[in-house]
Amino acid sequence: MAVGPATFPEKMHPVAGFKLGTASAGIKTPGRKDVVLMELCEEATVAGVFTLNAFCAAPVQISKKHLDAAATRYFIVNTGNANAGTGEEGWNDAITTCEEVAKLCDSGVEAVLPFSTGVIGEKLPVEKLVSALPAAKEVLSESGWDEAAEGILTTDTRIKGASRQFEYQGKVVTLTGISKGSGMIKPNMATMLGYVATDAQVDADLLKVLLTDTANCSFNRITVDSDTSTNDSCMLVATGKSGVSVSAEDRSLLALFKTELTQLMQDLAHAIVRDGEGATKFVTVKVESAKTQQEALKTAFDIAHSPLVKTALFASDPNWGRVLAVVGRAEIENLDLNALEIYLGDVCIVSKGGKDATYTEEAGQAVMDQEQILIRVVLNRGDVSETVWTTDLSHDYVSINADYRS
Amino acid sequence: MAVGPATFPEKMHPVAGFKLGTASAGIKTPGRKDVVLMELCEEATVAGVFTLNAFCAAPVQISKKHLDAAATRYFIVNTGNANAGTGEEGWNDAITTCEEVAKLCDSGVEAVLPFSTGVIGEKLPVEKLVSALPAAKEVLSESGWDEAAEGILTTDTRIKGASRQFEYQGKVVTLTGISKGSGMIKPNMATMLGYVATDAQVDADLLKVLLTDTANCSFNRITVDSDTSTNDSCMLVATGKSGVSVSAEDRSLLALFKTELTQLMQDLAHAIVRDGEGATKFVTVKVESAKTQQEALKTAFDIAHSPLVKTALFASDPNWGRVLAVVGRAEIENLDLNALEIYLGDVCIVSKGGKDATYTEEAGQAVMDQEQILIRVVLNRGDVSETVWTTDLSHDYVSINADYRS
Repeated sequence: MAVGPATFPEKMHPVAGFKLGTASAGIKTPGRKDVVLMELCEEATVAGVFTLNAFCAAPVQISKKHLDAAATRYFIVNTGNANAGTGEEGWNDAITTCEEVAKLCDSGVEAVLPFSTGVIGEKLPVEKLVSALPAAKEVLSESGWDEAAEGILTTDTRIKGASRQFEYQGKVVTLTGISKGSGMIKPNMATMLGYVATDAQVDADLLKVLLTDTANCSFNRITVDSDTSTNDSCMLVATGKSGVSVSAEDRSLLALFKTELTQLMQDLAHAIVRDGEGATKFVTVKVESAKTQQEALKTAFDIAHSPLVKTALFASDPNWGRVLAVVGRAEIENLDLNALEIYLGDVCIVSKGGKDATYTEEAGQAVMDQEQILIRVVLNRGDVSETVWTTDLSHDYVSINADYRS
Repeated sequence: MAVGPATFPEKMHPVAGFKLGTASAGIKTPGRKDVVLMELCEEATVAGVFTLNAFCAAPVQISKKHLDAAATRYFIVNTGNANAGTGEEGWNDAITTCEEVAKLCDSGVEAVLPFSTGVIGEKLPVEKLVSALPAAKEVLSESGWDEAAEGILTTDTRIKGASRQFEYQGKVVTLTGISKGSGMIKPNMATMLGYVATDAQVDADLLKVLLTDTANCSFNRITVDSDTSTNDSCMLVATGKSGVSVSAEDRSLLALFKTELTQLMQDLAHAIVRDGEGATKFVTVKVESAKTQQEALKTAFDIAHSPLVKTALFASDPNWGRVLAVVGRAEIENLDLNALEIYLGDVCIVSKGGKDATYTEEAGQAVMDQEQILIRVVLNRGDVSETVWTTDLSHDYVSINADYRS
């Protein structure tokens, strides 16, 4: 199940200088695509954001270390096994993987960043993974995005990608990316896995700022089930092959690039929500005119995580009292109940501390019957707004997660 | 559905000086018991703890106000309607209810505390409620506990009560109480509704301290679905009729009384968890040797609220990686992953940053197959422990909350 029509683009524009190769190692399911190798051209710059989960997986720790230590030339991704909670053995398995890629591709070990996603706490079948590396290298190609999008999935029911181009002074700049994620989604600095590449030239420091800023209004604003994964990682690569150089000096180009990147990142993040485990609704929660970012975000996430709000969304039940109850427990200091308003879509449901005088059950029902729903809380006490995106909580969510390992 | 055998005592010991009368007003469902009147003797002292939800319901606001203003003689409770999110009209309806009780029972209006539970945001059918008052008054009796336990339920599938007696210097002291609650359970200073009475004599200040302390290790340590209700209230009444006076001077009696009260409050709180919406498991989450109470509580509640942990519990799946992932995201500062241990019952599942060397899937499965499960996280960084109690997340939880208003 997923919400709305598929959003994977018909055409994933290749990014010159960035190649992807996908293979099948039989890590969890025989025959399925589960290993993706990505190759960056020598001039490419790279930025990464990683999970803040203290139990971050061995590959995440190693990716952070290698990213700091040397120029990155390869990403090696496997699905079916997260290599998380695996202690020293897990660390060694991830290093072995890097060493084998380095040997095969004639690079340094620190030029390889490993990524794993799947079940937590089981040993990585490193021999299987290594034996699939030559096949992945064999098919490395700038047009390998579609297969790679498939090769990184776990419980996802859909491949997720986005691709954009814009012109600047007669030159075309391309941004293309893929993501995966469906459950254990409450990213904290990144989503489960995201890989975005552009042929713009961007220096590494600026690239890191751009990735952090755009992750903060995309991947870091989505939640399916409030659980931050041990393996979240999002990588942004700039190959420079377009001949267009993005820098702080050219502010209009920087703004244009950032707008395009933000849209791409949001498309990828929204694709994860639309494919959230058991999702039947795509829900936008917007908290407006808050005093601080912290109170806006906490209120929005509290609504997005409330099992009672989420089951009401699943039932298409305009049970606005549940939204009101969450706002009331969101620990907003000196909240003036009479000043705030709550809207379902365009329908005002709460004002002056109670049900809005104009509200009718029919109007609320009409909004809730839709597949895409906007919950808007107007606090009227400041000028900060925050938006997060989430799903409903359905029977299928329970089924998927009760059966995950069986 | 509820977990384990019913815990309602065969004998609810009457508390001299405290009477209960239950009637049927047809507030939501024709014919069901939904109005309870309770009468306190003139000498009784009263303490109350109430929800911290900013959107607290009109009856909660009025109960707090009346409690401060005058000696309390009556509690009037209705189920089927929470009178929350109802603005000025809701306030007036609750005041009308108090006025009618005062008129009928010949007391002051401020001697009456109103309590409501049920659907949020619908107008209280105050005429129906008022018309049932004479019938409730008619049956006021010290042995009215069983009917009252029934008369305060909403989605609960079981009545909830506890009753204890102890001897002190040849005199018998009785403590008896009832509670209700099944969903929207993450009390913050109190549960949905709890009424406890004792015939000990306790002055009002000490009674408040005792109630707060014991709520903090009972009702304030349970969660079904992380949502703090707008109507949580817990009242403790001391009638003094036993002739035993509990005070700070007699420390051994105070300790004895507090132990008995704590046990009673925990029994009532656990009964709510056992009857949690859709619950199939009764889960104890204990975080030991934390540095601060705050980190112990946050970790315990984060585990208890994780949909992924809760669905694994429902599936009896020893998916310990999910517990590890929650501990990792619980924002414990400078957490030493190698020092901590996680246990399922007596089975060590995590040590030295990964799966414990002695762990077997069979041992984990044997614990998860039980109806009562202990998850124990030993942080090994301080001397603070906290325990919370919760349920699993089942299909029935989704069904109950998707269908609640239909």
